[in-house]
Amino acid sequence: MPRSLITLVTDFGTSDHFVAAMKGVILSIHPQAEIVDVTHDIHPFEIAEGAFVLNETWRYFPKKTVHVAVVDPGVGSDRRPVLVEADGHLFVGPDNGVFSFVYEQATKFTVRHLTADRYFRKPVSRTFHGRDIFAPVAGHAAKGVKPALLGKKINDPVRLAVLAPNRTSRRAWTGNVLKVDRFGNLITNFHLSEFGEIRTRAFEITCGLQHINRLALNYAETEPGELFVIVGSSGYLEVAANQDSAARRLGCGAGAPVDLEMFG
Amino acid sequence: MPRSLITLVTDFGTSDHFVAAMKGVILSIHPQAEIVDVTHDIHPFEIAEGAFVLNETWRYFPKKTVHVAVVDPGVGSDRRPVLVEADGHLFVGPDNGVFSFVYEQATKFTVRHLTADRYFRKPVSRTFHGRDIFAPVAGHAAKGVKPALLGKKINDPVRLAVLAPNRTSRRAWTGNVLKVDRFGNLITNFHLSEFGEIRTRAFEITCGLQHINRLALNYAETEPGELFVIVGSSGYLEVAANQDSAARRLGCGAGAPVDLEMFG
Amino acid sequence: MPRSLITLVTDFGTSDHFVAAMKGVILSIHPQAEIVDVTHDIHPFEIAEGAFVLNETWRYFPKKTVHVAVVDPGVGSDRRPVLVEADGHLFVGPDNGVFSFVYEQATKFTVRHLTADRYFRKPVSRTFHGRDIFAPVAGHAAKGVKPALLGKKINDPVRLAVLAPNRTSRRAWTGNVLKVDRFGNLITNFHLSEFGEIRTRAFEITCGLQHINRLALNYAETEPGELFVIVGSSGYLEVAANQDSAARRLGCGAGAPVDLEMFG
Repeated sequence: MPRSLITLVTDFGTSDHFVAAMKGVILSIHPQAEIVDVTHDIHPFEIAEGAFVLNETWRYFPKKTVHVAVVDPGVGSDRRPVLVEADGHLFVGPDNGVFSFVYEQATKFTVRHLTADRYFRKPVSRTFHGRDIFAPVAGHAAKGVKPALLGKKINDPVRLAVLAPNRTSRRAWTGNVLKVDRFGNLITNFHLSEFGEIRTRAFEITCGLQHINRLALNYAETEPGELFVIVGSSGYLEVAANQDSAARRLGCGAGAPVDLEMFG
Repeated sequence: MPRSLITLVTDFGTSDHFVAAMKGVILSIHPQAEIVDVTHDIHPFEIAEGAFVLNETWRYFPKKTVHVAVVDPGVGSDRRPVLVEADGHLFVGPDNGVFSFVYEQATKFTVRHLTADRYFRKPVSRTFHGRDIFAPVAGHAAKGVKPALLGKKINDPVRLAVLAPNRTSRRAWTGNVLKVDRFGNLITNFHLSEFGEIRTRAFEITCGLQHINRLALNYAETEPGELFVIVGSSGYLEVAANQDSAARRLGCGAGAPVDLEMFG
Repeated sequence: MPRSLITLVTDFGTSDHFVAAMKGVILSIHPQAEIVDVTHDIHPFEIAEGAFVLNETWRYFPKKTVHVAVVDPGVGSDRRPVLVEADGHLFVGPDNGVFSFVYEQATKFTVRHLTADRYFRKPVSRTFHGRDIFAPVAGHAAKGVKPALLGKKINDPVRLAVLAPNRTSRRAWTGNVLKVDRFGNLITNFHLSEFGEIRTRAFEITCGLQHINRLALNYAETEPGELFVIVGSSGYLEVAANQDSAARRLGCGAGAPVDLEMFG
């Protein structure tokens, strides 16, 4: 029997008991579950960051994996808990936009409002639905409970405002930084699928006070400290510095504007 | 065959080889063990913090789970290594108070002094009993070695000084902060089971220089930046700030005094 | 069937999607793999630190474990990807010295240049060989693909400059700090196997501006704040401070010189 995989993206950190409580609940329901931590270091309440990291990981897992995303500033309010089916994967979390990228990029998806509280842990606290709703539902879903038993389809899931760059003139766009990665690289929302011309045309990217016009193929061909643009492993353009943090060099973080101009 | 679960609470951090060495030892003894990291970010040597986090997690796991807690400033001295059986769970670690909450809250428990060194890794180092005593004993216990084979019962396990609040007058108590969580919430040692009246009576909690008298049901009903009291997911009263760190706002951390007064 | 174990040492951190992408790739190839995180907190591009941590962990795991080490500043250049067989364990990573300690300490080892790209993930990106080469090769190797199918033997793997201390006079050596651990202990490259006389002779260790001549058997016998030398759990001499950070006290970090003089 292949094991059931469950992945976790949260903003709970790893110093507290929150994540382990969720794991205990999952494993009590479904002892054969294999739980993979994606990250628990999403900045508190940063839904867009959670949405981005989730989207950069789910496709690498086998179909039938259940992906749990808990970045949930509205816990205890009337925001809905949801289950999403998309391209053979399942997603469980709050209906607050954290699945926006999944909705945009999946070939096909359905969203259900989780209402079957017999699959919840009781009593449901007002502050920790990760433990009381999302973990137990993920455990039951991974164990084989059909989505239709968990709640009815809805057609109006919450989506984050689209994060694609805006065209500001014929040859210019303004986008922004989706995330600063561990190495200080600025991952922008310019994706190679739409901005592939950057590989053959002259360009200038402006971020902070710096103008960058070099596209590097890999880190090794650049000089220590040099600023450059590189196509990241997910296809987004990244502003990077060789063995240095571009974020610190440019004074830019998540959300910072990034301008692109093409020439010639 | 259900897998054997082993959880780990330590102050070893995640940057070094310590935790992986423990896991390698466990998996060499019991390859079917499933190891769950609770946290390795207990502040170095903070036994009370380790005891609190352990207590907030063990009950969520299935019975027969083995919980390993290594916060062990006395490693290499004559403090005893122990095995605790409590409410169907097993606990392995140093006899320094890290199991105090388990002793207080379990329906029934027994404590054994781990003396059967044939279950230890040899030679036993003087500085890393996590690898040489606690990990191998946990592996053997999870694999089915009977507690009685691991050591004799003792009746004087070390307990931390009781952390419950002190009554200072008819309507006033002084407690303290058990832990600051990831969000900056101050988890106090006032538990709803004893201070449930806070839900129906006027009150004032004083922490740092601030007086707080609002009890919120969830975060969503409060204003950004507002300070309030909320019943945490474990039943302890917490001092919180909406989308901000109460710890930073109040300048309070673990161990800080918290005063509660009830009115009316 | 015993599960296949795969361990991971990287400098990817735990805030991004990198590690989860690797795990998804591994589990898609080999769903029965059991993945153990050693650490992802190697300082970016610090090959020597990764080599040290890897060497402190691999021997604790059962034979046949596959150890993946990705500290890879040269990703995308022509540095070779390699598979190492050593003492019954397998290692996968870049040929940049990260396996130096394995080569020195294994009884026997062979190194292969990974060229069989049918076992890679396609297309292979220029910046993330952890996901595209090392994870899939580890998955296939753990699943049973023979090393000989993965690439040809090479005889010139890259090794870091030897990190053993240099003798500077008849009774004096200069070594350095291999790593600062979580507790601020300075792990030096003086190993008990060569410097065992420190247990019976007078000595002085100089690090930063401090001279230390006490060898402690355990932490408990020292005074709070006291600086001393202790034999670490791996056999290396460590400079430590009781319940304090020796690194901060001495102002020393990884790479700092450490002088040892023996007397009498």
